[in-house]
Amino acid sequence: MILRSTAFPDLSMCVALAHELAEISAGIIRPLFRSPALNVDDKADLTPVTAADRDSEAAMRERIREVFPDHGVIGEEFPAENPDAEFVWVLDPVDGTGALVSGLPTFGTLIGLCHRGTPVLGLINQPISDERWIGLTGEQTLFNGERAKVRAVRSLDQATIFTTALDCFASDSDRSAFERLAGKTRLRRFGCDCYAYGLLALGWCDLVCETGLKVHDFTALVPVITGAGGRMTGWDNRPLDLSSDGRVLASTGEPLHREALEILTGTKGATPS
Amino acid sequence: MILRSTAFPDLSMCVALAHELAEISAGIIRPLFRSPALNVDDKADLTPVTAADRDSEAAMRERIREVFPDHGVIGEEFPAENPDAEFVWVLDPVDGTGALVSGLPTFGTLIGLCHRGTPVLGLINQPISDERWIGLTGEQTLFNGERAKVRAVRSLDQATIFTTALDCFASDSDRSAFERLAGKTRLRRFGCDCYAYGLLALGWCDLVCETGLKVHDFTALVPVITGAGGRMTGWDNRPLDLSSDGRVLASTGEPLHREALEILTGTKGATPS
Repeated sequence: MILRSTAFPDLSMCVALAHELAEISAGIIRPLFRSPALNVDDKADLTPVTAADRDSEAAMRERIREVFPDHGVIGEEFPAENPDAEFVWVLDPVDGTGALVSGLPTFGTLIGLCHRGTPVLGLINQPISDERWIGLTGEQTLFNGERAKVRAVRSLDQATIFTTALDCFASDSDRSAFERLAGKTRLRRFGCDCYAYGLLALGWCDLVCETGLKVHDFTALVPVITGAGGRMTGWDNRPLDLSSDGRVLASTGEPLHREALEILTGTKGATPS
Repeated sequence: MILRSTAFPDLSMCVALAHELAEISAGIIRPLFRSPALNVDDKADLTPVTAADRDSEAAMRERIREVFPDHGVIGEEFPAENPDAEFVWVLDPVDGTGALVSGLPTFGTLIGLCHRGTPVLGLINQPISDERWIGLTGEQTLFNGERAKVRAVRSLDQATIFTTALDCFASDSDRSAFERLAGKTRLRRFGCDCYAYGLLALGWCDLVCETGLKVHDFTALVPVITGAGGRMTGWDNRPLDLSSDGRVLASTGEPLHREALEILTGTKGATPS
């Protein structure tokens, strides 16, 4: 018999639940894709929200409560439940609602799990193209069951950089910082939300740089990127956790990561990791 | 017996050839998607080019020469052949090479046909998601064999606008014009190349605005958009043809189209169509 603290659940059960949540959300989102039933509304901040966002998050929360009633849940569409719990699920049912409401299959469902504030499990699900990434602390990221790995680190002038949109930057200075960095890269691509991080984990781009992200936007991405051999930090080079300021950089690794941070922050020595 | 000028081929044969060219190009591009065999090179203008671009255009040209030896061909990767012919095929084997080299399935193969300089047939093929749009003068656009139709015309403040990237604009004044227009819309989306026009034809966005397009970038799009009930013109409100300056606007129709052009050109009365 293996002794195990009852306070620490078997993470393989969490992995199984994450896959189950991906299926639950996909079952709700898929029939609404390019359907008049999508029902686009405006939220208070004038960003779009749909039945796909709300119904899939509600269904995932219900299943988490059934399986792990002691776990907390933070999600985009409803108030946090038990956010100070040891384990907290962090959900974004549709990361890239702007893509969904435009009929574009580059959005994703993000399912993250934090242990004492640190992301330990992350899943990205694209329910239209049936693409799924899952990352778990200390293990290799899987893409549709196969090992996913970032590509070899390139020099900045050979790098491809992604961001969702220049007008997503939280301030003019953040936007200028991005433009300073992007201007030194080989290729700039826009508009992919979480899908860009998935491409990084598959070895098809080198940098993703954004600001203004909420915890539900980035928590699930961290284990996916790190488990694929990449790096993902704040612009201050610190690990991302539930208290991060939403300025994030993902990369294939060092020395590219450090160089990009130095350009973003206008320093020659970013905070040590 | 139906009398028909031998100089005027049956357009249904051209439609059949366009579908065949889509299959030929997809057969070359599909195995290269997310494959190390993609072989990304730099062109003289430092934009990326791959074996997918060159090999698929060469194969399409060869088939056109076999079927219609009197037709001209203009394509992105090789010199024009017989460009003053009555019928000229206009090919972009990979519109969105930046997407292809990033593993992103939002590029498309564009196959257009001009009659005396005017686009009369257009096909967009996305070989990874198996999505195909075909438009033909005077006929309803088809998407995977089903009728495609733009959505009802919205007011500008309710519109979704697409463009590929702000740094694709040909000049600062073009970029400012776009930002003036985009600032009045409901939702801005970036990064889709031809796929954005496909989404417009399916009723999932309202405006696509770009500059700096070459004839191979826009020729195939015109019959797709117009056959779906939309409008596609230059910023001067003139029909697009082989002599256009590459500043294009596609929309769901009037009065949105005229209003957008007036904002782009800073006038209250754009050139009549």
